[in-house]
Amino acid sequence: MRSINSAYAGLPGSYLFSEVARRVRVHKEQHPEENVISLGIGDVSLPLAPAIIEALHGAVDEMGRAETFRGYGPEQGYAFLREAILKHDFLARGVELEADEIFISDGAKSDVGNFQELFGADAVIALTDPVYPVYEDSNAMSGRGGVHENGRWSRILYLPCTADNQFQPELPETRPDVVYLCSPNNPTGTVLGREALAAWVEYARANDTLILFYAAYEAFIRDDAVPHSIYEIPGADEVAVEFRSLSKTAGFTGLRCGYTVVPKKLRARTADGHELSLHDMWLRRQCTKYNGCPYIVQRAAEAAFTEPGRTQLLEALSVYQTNADMMLKACRDMGLRAFGGVHSPYVWLETPGHVSSWSFFDHLLEKAAVVCTPGSGFGASGEGYVRLTAFNTPALTREALERISRVL
Amino acid sequence: MRSINSAYAGLPGSYLFSEVARRVRVHKEQHPEENVISLGIGDVSLPLAPAIIEALHGAVDEMGRAETFRGYGPEQGYAFLREAILKHDFLARGVELEADEIFISDGAKSDVGNFQELFGADAVIALTDPVYPVYEDSNAMSGRGGVHENGRWSRILYLPCTADNQFQPELPETRPDVVYLCSPNNPTGTVLGREALAAWVEYARANDTLILFYAAYEAFIRDDAVPHSIYEIPGADEVAVEFRSLSKTAGFTGLRCGYTVVPKKLRARTADGHELSLHDMWLRRQCTKYNGCPYIVQRAAEAAFTEPGRTQLLEALSVYQTNADMMLKACRDMGLRAFGGVHSPYVWLETPGHVSSWSFFDHLLEKAAVVCTPGSGFGASGEGYVRLTAFNTPALTREALERISRVL
Repeated sequence: MRSINSAYAGLPGSYLFSEVARRVRVHKEQHPEENVISLGIGDVSLPLAPAIIEALHGAVDEMGRAETFRGYGPEQGYAFLREAILKHDFLARGVELEADEIFISDGAKSDVGNFQELFGADAVIALTDPVYPVYEDSNAMSGRGGVHENGRWSRILYLPCTADNQFQPELPETRPDVVYLCSPNNPTGTVLGREALAAWVEYARANDTLILFYAAYEAFIRDDAVPHSIYEIPGADEVAVEFRSLSKTAGFTGLRCGYTVVPKKLRARTADGHELSLHDMWLRRQCTKYNGCPYIVQRAAEAAFTEPGRTQLLEALSVYQTNADMMLKACRDMGLRAFGGVHSPYVWLETPGHVSSWSFFDHLLEKAAVVCTPGSGFGASGEGYVRLTAFNTPALTREALERISRVL
Repeated sequence: MRSINSAYAGLPGSYLFSEVARRVRVHKEQHPEENVISLGIGDVSLPLAPAIIEALHGAVDEMGRAETFRGYGPEQGYAFLREAILKHDFLARGVELEADEIFISDGAKSDVGNFQELFGADAVIALTDPVYPVYEDSNAMSGRGGVHENGRWSRILYLPCTADNQFQPELPETRPDVVYLCSPNNPTGTVLGREALAAWVEYARANDTLILFYAAYEAFIRDDAVPHSIYEIPGADEVAVEFRSLSKTAGFTGLRCGYTVVPKKLRARTADGHELSLHDMWLRRQCTKYNGCPYIVQRAAEAAFTEPGRTQLLEALSVYQTNADMMLKACRDMGLRAFGGVHSPYVWLETPGHVSSWSFFDHLLEKAAVVCTPGSGFGASGEGYVRLTAFNTPALTREALERISRVL
């Protein structure tokens, strides 16, 4: 084989969470007696809610009977789920969309990783820094990175988010074709308020920039003044795609279901002026390269939008929110600078004495047997921070915080 | 948005099965009283086997208890499933591989659609004609098609497979970087024997060509002289990737699980001579853009490799094989030329009087309320054929064949 995607040759190291997992595995092999606590990868710990388990069992039984068996489903998802999402996530917030603008998938990670296939090879991508690595890596793999030097890609436009600007990305000075925004943010745990988001929508409309809005953590928002959806901003449906997930809101990290909103009003142009509908392009992409989320998983997702399902999920959510409160308070009591954690399961912690992210990661793993995520893995501006997640059990979260306080 | 993937602008019509589904939907709306029978899309009709249902219920229960709940799994699949596959699909046939050369996914369609991301933009792709549209469309979407004229892409190398060459693709005269081979073949239902496959492996080794071997239908092979895996040919592990699926063999079309073998011995080079491992590249791709097949689905897949599971699946398979036998005989009794259908669930039928594929499709839908798949949708050399599938129930298959015989 002589014609390979050379962009892979330029990719730095391995994917962040794989490297974290590798170091943890090595540590556990060397210290099998230790009880390592993870505040690292954003994985939930509570089991699936009873309403979801019940829906799964029901759907499994359907699959075992000829009369109710379901084979290939629509690649874009079953109408029952698209309509439940439309009603509860959007219409209930006054956002007008149509059910067929919502595409069901096996997760927001896949969708946000795949969506860049619709862009030209020369598209200029703007990313906040720090950033969820999938946005950056997926574009770099498609050759939109350029050269990787000092932790940054030469062709990507970075928008630093640090304590100095309250983690609010500034509007870019040169126009990007696409900007990825994530609120509540992974990894910083901070949010874009209505005014900030409206400024982005205005910028996008004025500059013909596409916004990819990653809203996987919207369920953690505690104040209705903070938009859950970018479509709460008028005119956003002409410039924005939105990615949603059931992973954090309904514990679906191991069950896999997400959804992406691609409004029909979104237009795009090729270099030679040919106009295309992003909605039609995404439909074509999904019909060609994807075969739909499993029926039983879509029935489970539907249960998350029923009355008992929603009540049970809010209980789980409040457990994680209480953890986040505890983490923020404990970190500040230790004299550390901690951000996020209010409308988010993530606390963004400045390392003590500004040691490097990986050094602090290794220190916490070695001395406290606690796993965090090194901030530098999310980008150059993440150096000197680590991310803590609120997804462990309250008892283990408390224990981890006590251990951390002893090794500072 | 001003920088879009212009390859989408050149894509012809919609995806084949979407267009078939659209015409069937229109027909049903106009004739709600008719009982339309589908021998069209290759979707199974038998419910999931009891062993698989039992495994699903068990795994769902695990997800409902904190002690056994599973969140994010390994992107490349759980070891329990990779090892079950290794043992039953490969070691049992004398094929030596390692478990971590097997990547679990949500289906062979996704994998074969995504795998081309690893190739260079200038890679020359060879496809048999007719062909499963995903191979062609996914490459065209990445700009490897060139211009689409008269049903063919200018930059793709087509290897016609017709009755004249017994549907055996000839070795190409000019060297491609990649060739897609499918045996048992979709859509023709014919197979590549050991000698033919060995010739391809030899060609690939001599010409530095990568073979993508699509073996989703291998369970239908009735004669052990026909290879189930390309790795039964010595040296294939240095030149071939193999795609497998549980869709047809275990009824997983609605449950979604497939797997792809990427041997570590496979090497590839960038244009400037940089050497890369396809195994490492695929791992990086999957870790970055995918989050693994649902745990409960992987447990269901594991059950397909247990003793009770295998016995139950063989029973289901024999139902479909008996259908195929019935279809072949009926078509020939009607005086039609029919191919495939022996080691395959597909019968490849020459249209009577060489009318066009879509005309015959419309005729069967209008007059017999039977759905087939137009051969021309699989490529220029498929014109004048339709594909029939053996996946319906025996009763409806028989009924469909009787209806067809009445409208010829």
